[in-house]
Amino acid sequence: MSLRISDNSPGLTDVPGLRVGAAGCDIRNKNQERLDLTLVVADRLCSAAGVFTTNDVKAAPVRVSQEILVSSAGRVRGFIANSGNANACTADQGMLDARAMAKLSAEAVKAPGEPFLVCSTGRIGELMPMPKVAKGIAEAGARLAKTSEEGDRSAWSILTSDTRPKTVTARFDWEGRTFTVSGMAKGAGMIEPNMATMLAFVATDLDAAPATLRTALLAATEQSFNCVSVDGDMSTNDTVLLLATGASGVSLDGAPAGLQKLFQEALDKVCFVLAEKIVGDGEKVTKMVSVEVSGGRTRAEAEAVARAIGNSLLVKSAWYGEDPNWGRLADAAGYARVGLDESKLDISYDDVPAVVAGRPLPENKPRWKAVVTQRRFTVKLHLHLGEASFRLLTTDLSEAYVNFNKSE
Amino acid sequence: MSLRISDNSPGLTDVPGLRVGAAGCDIRNKNQERLDLTLVVADRLCSAAGVFTTNDVKAAPVRVSQEILVSSAGRVRGFIANSGNANACTADQGMLDARAMAKLSAEAVKAPGEPFLVCSTGRIGELMPMPKVAKGIAEAGARLAKTSEEGDRSAWSILTSDTRPKTVTARFDWEGRTFTVSGMAKGAGMIEPNMATMLAFVATDLDAAPATLRTALLAATEQSFNCVSVDGDMSTNDTVLLLATGASGVSLDGAPAGLQKLFQEALDKVCFVLAEKIVGDGEKVTKMVSVEVSGGRTRAEAEAVARAIGNSLLVKSAWYGEDPNWGRLADAAGYARVGLDESKLDISYDDVPAVVAGRPLPENKPRWKAVVTQRRFTVKLHLHLGEASFRLLTTDLSEAYVNFNKSE
Repeated sequence: MSLRISDNSPGLTDVPGLRVGAAGCDIRNKNQERLDLTLVVADRLCSAAGVFTTNDVKAAPVRVSQEILVSSAGRVRGFIANSGNANACTADQGMLDARAMAKLSAEAVKAPGEPFLVCSTGRIGELMPMPKVAKGIAEAGARLAKTSEEGDRSAWSILTSDTRPKTVTARFDWEGRTFTVSGMAKGAGMIEPNMATMLAFVATDLDAAPATLRTALLAATEQSFNCVSVDGDMSTNDTVLLLATGASGVSLDGAPAGLQKLFQEALDKVCFVLAEKIVGDGEKVTKMVSVEVSGGRTRAEAEAVARAIGNSLLVKSAWYGEDPNWGRLADAAGYARVGLDESKLDISYDDVPAVVAGRPLPENKPRWKAVVTQRRFTVKLHLHLGEASFRLLTTDLSEAYVNFNKSE
Repeated sequence: MSLRISDNSPGLTDVPGLRVGAAGCDIRNKNQERLDLTLVVADRLCSAAGVFTTNDVKAAPVRVSQEILVSSAGRVRGFIANSGNANACTADQGMLDARAMAKLSAEAVKAPGEPFLVCSTGRIGELMPMPKVAKGIAEAGARLAKTSEEGDRSAWSILTSDTRPKTVTARFDWEGRTFTVSGMAKGAGMIEPNMATMLAFVATDLDAAPATLRTALLAATEQSFNCVSVDGDMSTNDTVLLLATGASGVSLDGAPAGLQKLFQEALDKVCFVLAEKIVGDGEKVTKMVSVEVSGGRTRAEAEAVARAIGNSLLVKSAWYGEDPNWGRLADAAGYARVGLDESKLDISYDDVPAVVAGRPLPENKPRWKAVVTQRRFTVKLHLHLGEASFRLLTTDLSEAYVNFNKSE
């Protein structure tokens, strides 16, 4: 039975066993009417897993969520997320504030003392405006609902410089029953190493032990968020959470392999769609480019080449200008220093060869140039060193990006 | 006796024993009156050393120069350099063309068969227009002179997107005699890893064995070109050459330690001034920023943090906007992943502390903001993990850079 994907879903309210509430409490101190906080609450304690930034500088909510996952043995009641303030580089007060947000969340849903995870995104280095946040948590708690309207509000509340909410729902059937995996995410900045604070929240109505969820989430992340280059150089706050409400009454643990496989496919797909949506909504992006490197001796080699290309200012500027400029691709591939042999290198744009075995094919130039005028295209490099490959989804770099980021 | 530095010198014609000639031969195929080729010729065979790009994709002239340094045992007659075409990714024909350029150079100075090094910079992936180049080499050969006018022309001829020539001369005295170390360089693109094709040519009237020169050049490069981040991720063509004409009749080999030390100081200074000039003339740069990281356990750790900061699009965009935004510095420092301890981190702008032991000092904000309005300033990070430090000279990122590079 195949997956059914809805990519304009309300997100987490599609998952039986979850309620959400969103509020606007002016965390940005701009007197704006803007949603900036959401509570996501399971009907009862549920299993959870998280993947967090590997940055040495971890925001307080990341450290607090990691603590809570350990102290609760992976059984939580829900999470609180806010935009507008990252609560990063805020020293001891930041830790106190993040813990207070978890405590206030439990109180707001009349489950005092139950564990809540905490996620924040926004400006670094400023203390959370806690009186406002407390008010927002209470308001979100009072709004908790399973309606798609509240799901939409929740998906909006976590955005920063995103232009649209990012949600997806996957459903699949097993032995006459339907199961759900849904998620919502936010990007920010350009989706490049060190650019994005990325938050993604995924839930399912299956049940599972926390360790089972963690294994599944790591596998899904590896093929999705980690292939849009938002992991190796994550921000201070990047977080992916997975909750299993168990509302279906069916557990993955000890389930038939077929069900486990369907769940993993659904989870992979949900994470991949969210990752794609993050890239597609990168700040001031005009193009999405898939960099497909094959023929590496190892996946790490292929990845190094793909990332060198995807992170090159000159390559990205050229894409913005719709200039194929394969010379800049070859240069970037070379400085990944995987031991590339130029005389074996093939480069093509979509399916139009530009370089074969190190020799340019200028006669194809009109056709490459047509490829890069598209809003979305693929550049393919074959290294002919081995069998491993890596695909990186990335973007161009526009003047508007620089202008947008020249101040906050 | 201290060094005397002239940083608007004519460059290599300040060095006794060298003649230079420059020509314009329309290598860019744009029918422009523009100097684009230079010959630099010693009065007789002389010792030479080179430092070359470590990119897997090395341009033909880089590979040919490396071959010639080996086959000649480091004794060459001079070099030919051109702008407008990098002769990179040009397969076998590129190698033939680079070798032909060496041969034509020797013939043009009536020294057929003598070894010449070859350096090219410009567009990647196009064959050299050899009939034009041959004409240019002959013309440059006919103009060979020791005049400062021809030195100026030579310094202009190697430029690409640079806005001004980059030259410097250092002179020092030893036992009543004056010795000279001079150089010229070109940058290109933003001076960032993978951005620049950098060429630098330095010469002295001292004599020395090639191995002596190589040691001296590596030491000077480590403290200059390698600290403006034009090595680890060099382009296909980056090259630094050092020639010792021996016209002074004095050799470094077996010389008193005092003379050796003065020479090294002069060489270090010449390389450093050229590196600074390259950064200062980076494409569409509006600010030069010195990133000084101290308190690393090793120099490599301090360097990793400095490069993470200096290469961050968000950090560079913020500098362009004169937004101090120390949060972005802390984030970038963290994803260098050297095991930074946020609670020990100090950050300051020039001498104004912004963060001490992980705690922001918002009361100083007006003073940091004043620092980043300057055309040149320093950001200092102290990691308090050890005693090692690294200084990276870098730049901001402007909208104009993206516009400039969106096509060639």
